[in-house]
Amino acid sequence: MKQGRIIIVSGPSGVGKGTVLKEVMKDDPSLQFSVSATTRTIRPGEIDGVHYYFIDKPRFEALIANNEMLEHAEYAGNYYGTPEKAVNDALAQGISVILEIEVQGALQVMRRRPDAISIFIAPPSFEELARRLNGRGDTPPEVAAKRLQIAEQECRNATKYQYTIINDTVSAAAARIRAILTAEACRSEYNAIQLEEEE
Amino acid sequence: MKQGRIIIVSGPSGVGKGTVLKEVMKDDPSLQFSVSATTRTIRPGEIDGVHYYFIDKPRFEALIANNEMLEHAEYAGNYYGTPEKAVNDALAQGISVILEIEVQGALQVMRRRPDAISIFIAPPSFEELARRLNGRGDTPPEVAAKRLQIAEQECRNATKYQYTIINDTVSAAAARIRAILTAEACRSEYNAIQLEEEE
Repeated sequence: MKQGRIIIVSGPSGVGKGTVLKEVMKDDPSLQFSVSATTRTIRPGEIDGVHYYFIDKPRFEALIANNEMLEHAEYAGNYYGTPEKAVNDALAQGISVILEIEVQGALQVMRRRPDAISIFIAPPSFEELARRLNGRGDTPPEVAAKRLQIAEQECRNATKYQYTIINDTVSAAAARIRAILTAEACRSEYNAIQLEEEE
Repeated sequence: MKQGRIIIVSGPSGVGKGTVLKEVMKDDPSLQFSVSATTRTIRPGEIDGVHYYFIDKPRFEALIANNEMLEHAEYAGNYYGTPEKAVNDALAQGISVILEIEVQGALQVMRRRPDAISIFIAPPSFEELARRLNGRGDTPPEVAAKRLQIAEQECRNATKYQYTIINDTVSAAAARIRAILTAEACRSEYNAIQLEEEE
């Protein structure tokens, strides 16, 4: 069976990553989201192993010490990260695993797994991103302005990803990501073995 | 305007390159074939500038000497090659140029133009290629056997191309090539400038 691939996806808050990825994954059982681990306490409605793997600090630190995290970071006194084993188990079953993570975590994964596909989702323009951030209606202007500033900084990292997708419309952006996955499956380094097997 | 890309396509005789490429190019004015130059004499029905640029030996040798050939080779006492200027003119107009060439020429272009997209079209299996070679009905068995042997040698070079497409069906192979072109247009190194232009 053909191994799955790690698919790193990043993009600024408000760009619509979730909606685009949901469209890409629709009716495609060969794609699944990675589940992160965290040391923060579980919240009402969250399910262990679905929203996060909820683990305690000593266990998380042991995973780091044993080099078993694909990437990790600390926010507000808690650890967040991606355990590598669960990802590898899925890949071995031919399932590609989407890691929707921020830039610093993405760079960690790229260094560790050069075979990962990396995609940055960018807004058509910062004016449009500002509209989308304000359009939620629940964001105070000063928070939206701050988010936009962070978004501009994040977009400077787009060139560190193999691919940059402009999310002009959900269907067009999803079609581009599907094209990337098809093209990556055609890469000679992943195809050559199969050809020889068929000889 | 976005520059076009050079698209190198190779594959063994009988694999169906022409049919697949015709399907890819259908209704897509942003793709055109490169026209080769040759020193061989024009044949009835051939049109200069369409089938080949028919030029004389001193002119061809001057193009080589001036480093104006993307690739070239000598067969049976005649030169064949791809003049770079015509390709560059098309690229500058946003047209991507398909070079359907054999492996040695392809390797020359890859070295000279690392920005070129390279695609190898392979048969689903050598049994199937043998069927296709024999299926033409006009090929003596010993010629077909020789072609198959050459095809096996050529397929060993597939890994030197970025992408390997299996031509199982024309529509599937064409869809994969279209996906590659879409994905390549999403590469961050070709997208980054546009993003900044829109700021």
